[in-house]
Amino acid sequence: MNSRLCRKLGIEFPLFAFSHCRDVVAEVTNAGGFGVLGAVGLNPEKLAVELNWINERVNGKPFGIDLLIPQNMVGKDSDSDDAELQGSVPEEHRKFVANLLERHGIDSSDVWTGKYDDRDSSFMRESGAAKMLEIAFQYPIKMFVNALGVPPASIISEAHSRGIVVGALTGSRRHAVKHAQAGVDVLVAAGGEAGGHCGEISTMVLVPEVIEAVQDYDNIDVLAAGGIATGRQMAACMAMGAAGVWCGSVWLTTTEAETTPAVKEKMLKAFSANTVRSRSRTGKPTRQLQSAWSDAWGAKGAPDPLPMPLQGILTRPAMAKVDKLAEAGHEGAKQIAAYFVGQCVGLMNTEQSVRSVVYDFMKDYAEAVERLSATLGDQVPAVAHHG
Amino acid sequence: MNSRLCRKLGIEFPLFAFSHCRDVVAEVTNAGGFGVLGAVGLNPEKLAVELNWINERVNGKPFGIDLLIPQNMVGKDSDSDDAELQGSVPEEHRKFVANLLERHGIDSSDVWTGKYDDRDSSFMRESGAAKMLEIAFQYPIKMFVNALGVPPASIISEAHSRGIVVGALTGSRRHAVKHAQAGVDVLVAAGGEAGGHCGEISTMVLVPEVIEAVQDYDNIDVLAAGGIATGRQMAACMAMGAAGVWCGSVWLTTTEAETTPAVKEKMLKAFSANTVRSRSRTGKPTRQLQSAWSDAWGAKGAPDPLPMPLQGILTRPAMAKVDKLAEAGHEGAKQIAAYFVGQCVGLMNTEQSVRSVVYDFMKDYAEAVERLSATLGDQVPAVAHHG
Repeated sequence: MNSRLCRKLGIEFPLFAFSHCRDVVAEVTNAGGFGVLGAVGLNPEKLAVELNWINERVNGKPFGIDLLIPQNMVGKDSDSDDAELQGSVPEEHRKFVANLLERHGIDSSDVWTGKYDDRDSSFMRESGAAKMLEIAFQYPIKMFVNALGVPPASIISEAHSRGIVVGALTGSRRHAVKHAQAGVDVLVAAGGEAGGHCGEISTMVLVPEVIEAVQDYDNIDVLAAGGIATGRQMAACMAMGAAGVWCGSVWLTTTEAETTPAVKEKMLKAFSANTVRSRSRTGKPTRQLQSAWSDAWGAKGAPDPLPMPLQGILTRPAMAKVDKLAEAGHEGAKQIAAYFVGQCVGLMNTEQSVRSVVYDFMKDYAEAVERLSATLGDQVPAVAHHG
Repeated sequence: MNSRLCRKLGIEFPLFAFSHCRDVVAEVTNAGGFGVLGAVGLNPEKLAVELNWINERVNGKPFGIDLLIPQNMVGKDSDSDDAELQGSVPEEHRKFVANLLERHGIDSSDVWTGKYDDRDSSFMRESGAAKMLEIAFQYPIKMFVNALGVPPASIISEAHSRGIVVGALTGSRRHAVKHAQAGVDVLVAAGGEAGGHCGEISTMVLVPEVIEAVQDYDNIDVLAAGGIATGRQMAACMAMGAAGVWCGSVWLTTTEAETTPAVKEKMLKAFSANTVRSRSRTGKPTRQLQSAWSDAWGAKGAPDPLPMPLQGILTRPAMAKVDKLAEAGHEGAKQIAAYFVGQCVGLMNTEQSVRSVVYDFMKDYAEAVERLSATLGDQVPAVAHHG
């Protein structure tokens, strides 16, 4: 496709794949799309390993990373580490999670011993994010995307000086304008139907609203995100003026994905109605597969989720243990197991390779465009010109 | 446009306009779309007046009506009338509304005296709905749409025997399948961003999910609804396989609309974020303009809204009085005043005639199709054929 964004990034097809799984990133890039490694949760050493792995497999084709540079979080810029933050988790919340696990036959005594969550939360402090970027800049990344908030000016200019395109996610018109003012090149307008952190404005409304709001910024491209798992939806978004689409959920049921088998099976069977928007995992609203976990947090009498990052520190080790047990066939764990996913889970019905998902997108996109073109008889433009 | 649905209904452009305002219905039909009169709240005599008025102005061009044939409501099939139902409204709820009005400088003493709401709720009982249909069948309506639930089999067959297309609104895949099994011809798949009664699945996901769910029913057409106020969004929905779009909100800010001026002004200024999904008006979740009304009902300590139709019996006269005062410039009333509207309120920024809205749709649709067609270079289909 000969669009400005495709030329800028050197890609054939403006399908952007967000994934924590390096295999997905490399496969999408190799198939003609653009893979973006979700690096939240990695430490600098692991990031280097992952970027090196991807770089060795894409033969010079472009890829990017998605990082989280925080703005308003407990622990920001302080020296507090995870152990200290652990101490800030109220006993009531810990008991609630422990009870939930025990009710499903899961021993909760070792959950918060460090055994189940080796994730480094230092990326959530500015100094941590800076170290991550330093590593990222040692690899030929073509795009850096900020997952939350406006990227700091210093980072935008450093990226630009290296020829790196800067992107940012937004769930509202208001934030989109702030990103545009800050000099972001690519806005990912993510509707409330998206998996993971999400707002409340739907993709169908947000995409044209954001495009209109930033129309005076000549060099900005808007990607549509939220609920998109097929080429016909990609065509829909591009009919509204999007330069491409950003998809996360659709890769979770691919053969390459690291998704826990029990969760993958749930996703393949799920309809769109089987997701919920809940603060139960990170402290901010995230869309996720409905399960015994979200049911419990949504029930009357459940504690109010903690602010970020405390809720994650509380729940990540619990869900990591649940995933491990679910993988081993533990029935209670299978009831709790879930993951972030968008409403498009209702459109994800067969396990496929990443490459075949990309090719299906291309085929479905082309068919949708042809179907739509065929509707343009003589009448419509003729009438339209009277207007 | 030479589609099956356009041929079936004898229209040029598959833009369906739902409106309680007869002027909007007639204007849309005359401009090449399809006007549908929202008849909920009318009594049979008024319905006859409205249908006659429309029929005299459309010169044989097609139009339809939207009715509500209830399934699970207090008062269904009983002889209880509104006066009796009034008695079922708890004192706590009445006091809450009275306090809210008084806090905004509005005398609440005459609200429930019958002075402000002359609406007949008998349509909410099956016998009432039957009388309404009897009237409707005396006019050359081309389509009957059921606003809630599966239309009864007897009504579907009577409509079919008169050559009338039967439609039904649905906010979920599951209900869509039930409608299809019942013999409905047109499914209106309405996303959670829609104004008025709405579900939680977004238009971007619901439309392809419903189309896939009913693909084995050869004669069903699916219209997309929810958040749609522009031709580019119409093109988006049709790229996903919809046969057309169903719009309600976009007419509310037209010159012909009966919308209270204070509310129209709020809508023209609103962004998509200024709507809320709340049970505060009818007892079921409806999307509406955020105002002091929805704020109060959403606040801690507010009573839980009553089931339908009690909440409407409580709130309609209050909001009718508010509208009247707001129209006269009462400041407190202007803060409370609001109406059902979708998230697309963020795309409705200028007051226009209905006809010019329709022509803008046609022009914007054609441009979106052309923009999308232009993306289909040689590369995409070529790659797609490898898949």
